[in-house]
Amino acid sequence: MRFAIIGIGLIGGSFAKGIKRLHPTAKIIGIDNNASHLEEALQLGLIDQKGDYEKLPEAEMVIMAIPVDVAVKELPKVLDSIGDDCLVFDVGSTKSLVCESVENHPKRRNYLACHPIAGTEFSGPSAAFDGLYEGKTNIICEVEKTAFKLQEKALELFQGLGMRIRYMNPESHDKHIAYVSHLSHISSFMLGKTVIEEEENERDIFDMAGSGFESTVRLAKSSPDMWAPIFEQNKANVVKSLEEYIKNLESFKQLMEENDFEGIHSQMNNTNRIKQILKGIPLGSTK
Amino acid sequence: MRFAIIGIGLIGGSFAKGIKRLHPTAKIIGIDNNASHLEEALQLGLIDQKGDYEKLPEAEMVIMAIPVDVAVKELPKVLDSIGDDCLVFDVGSTKSLVCESVENHPKRRNYLACHPIAGTEFSGPSAAFDGLYEGKTNIICEVEKTAFKLQEKALELFQGLGMRIRYMNPESHDKHIAYVSHLSHISSFMLGKTVIEEEENERDIFDMAGSGFESTVRLAKSSPDMWAPIFEQNKANVVKSLEEYIKNLESFKQLMEENDFEGIHSQMNNTNRIKQILKGIPLGSTK
Repeated sequence: MRFAIIGIGLIGGSFAKGIKRLHPTAKIIGIDNNASHLEEALQLGLIDQKGDYEKLPEAEMVIMAIPVDVAVKELPKVLDSIGDDCLVFDVGSTKSLVCESVENHPKRRNYLACHPIAGTEFSGPSAAFDGLYEGKTNIICEVEKTAFKLQEKALELFQGLGMRIRYMNPESHDKHIAYVSHLSHISSFMLGKTVIEEEENERDIFDMAGSGFESTVRLAKSSPDMWAPIFEQNKANVVKSLEEYIKNLESFKQLMEENDFEGIHSQMNNTNRIKQILKGIPLGSTK
Repeated sequence: MRFAIIGIGLIGGSFAKGIKRLHPTAKIIGIDNNASHLEEALQLGLIDQKGDYEKLPEAEMVIMAIPVDVAVKELPKVLDSIGDDCLVFDVGSTKSLVCESVENHPKRRNYLACHPIAGTEFSGPSAAFDGLYEGKTNIICEVEKTAFKLQEKALELFQGLGMRIRYMNPESHDKHIAYVSHLSHISSFMLGKTVIEEEENERDIFDMAGSGFESTVRLAKSSPDMWAPIFEQNKANVVKSLEEYIKNLESFKQLMEENDFEGIHSQMNNTNRIKQILKGIPLGSTK
């Protein structure tokens, strides 16, 4: 079986490792505009050969794991280049624009819109590992617009990687992912920024940091190249979630200023519900 | 050797486990106003007997691991009850008020003000584990106000538990810990609150949550009984850090509304510096 992976970093590379486990004889063509990443992927054995779009007609399955702003530009070209029985899926964290970008493409039925809720704060081919997708949720949008046989092909791979599937429309996906993913990244980046700014006045402040700080600020290690376009594509939903977050922080601050620490206590107490909620989440490894 | 531990939850209980490893023959008296916690601690073997302040004269070392609002009230009484050669230390996350509370106490030199930067989001005796303090930072305030022999006694225990020591005055401690610890808890609690509120309109939103969300919201599992008093005692510093955090979130939102995604990118890029910073932090286990 022949695969092409466009964007051979953490996400694409982890698919490559899983595919090689499931299909030991599979040939994987790597395509990446970052030459050193592509070479690294070859050295690491993630891919069997470097390639470009001219190789796409050979592929039975094409995985696009590139920033969402690039994906909306490239997906139509990729569909132009593939054979009739080839499946193309993307893994982007926003789904509305990428679906629109090929809405009327003659090969729309060769495309499946996916979002595996999986990743780490690291990036690049060296961050890839087999098992990243084990037990994780994969959200599929507009499944009815993909050829049935190609849906089957995709599900076979996803099940082989141990993913659980959820179906959603792109608008609901983008609305809700803003809260459970995009907002978390902003809260973490801005927490890191706030503490770094304070550190400028006090060199050894980080000597006092513990595992709690490390956990809340972990996502601030994430790649700006990946995340800036996500925020741009999901602007309306992200701004709304950010406004609600700021509103809650403001009201917490006001309770403190009014010395209403019973109110503070009860807000925290109600939010402790997150314990039960998180028990229900298939988190798997954060590596 | 005889120890008394006042407050036998995650923190006090983990000291008990460490002490039993270092001093197998040590006798530990547990004191807790939560009768079921105290019984649980006895069943778990964290303590050898239940006790009250009448037992304090027998103790060579007293560890106070109770909420900071209770500590400021109880510490003077504890010092009233102990013998002349007994060391008392607390582990609270705020240090100014507790130091003031015994500033002029005749037994001030029997007290050492400590803050081990260690913990998990869990609480109670069953959450206690040996190794919680391994490689963690322990901040000691006003060390010069503690009798030299008793400082030595304390350092012997802390070194036995694998902690690294930092010395600071209470005001600097409270100012900086607001940023690297207290603010993280608020950002996490309010993130949880914001997403839970959104969930009310959309039951299966948490089906979309991944390890990134879990990491940023982990501290929202923390105990309100422990944290509300910390925020109250460190109000001025916490409100200031919260204001700076909100300011940064507002400016991020404004950049988005102005479609300045290069600005967004460069803010995230600068904050990626947190990678190098975190490498320097002795995080140890987050359990």
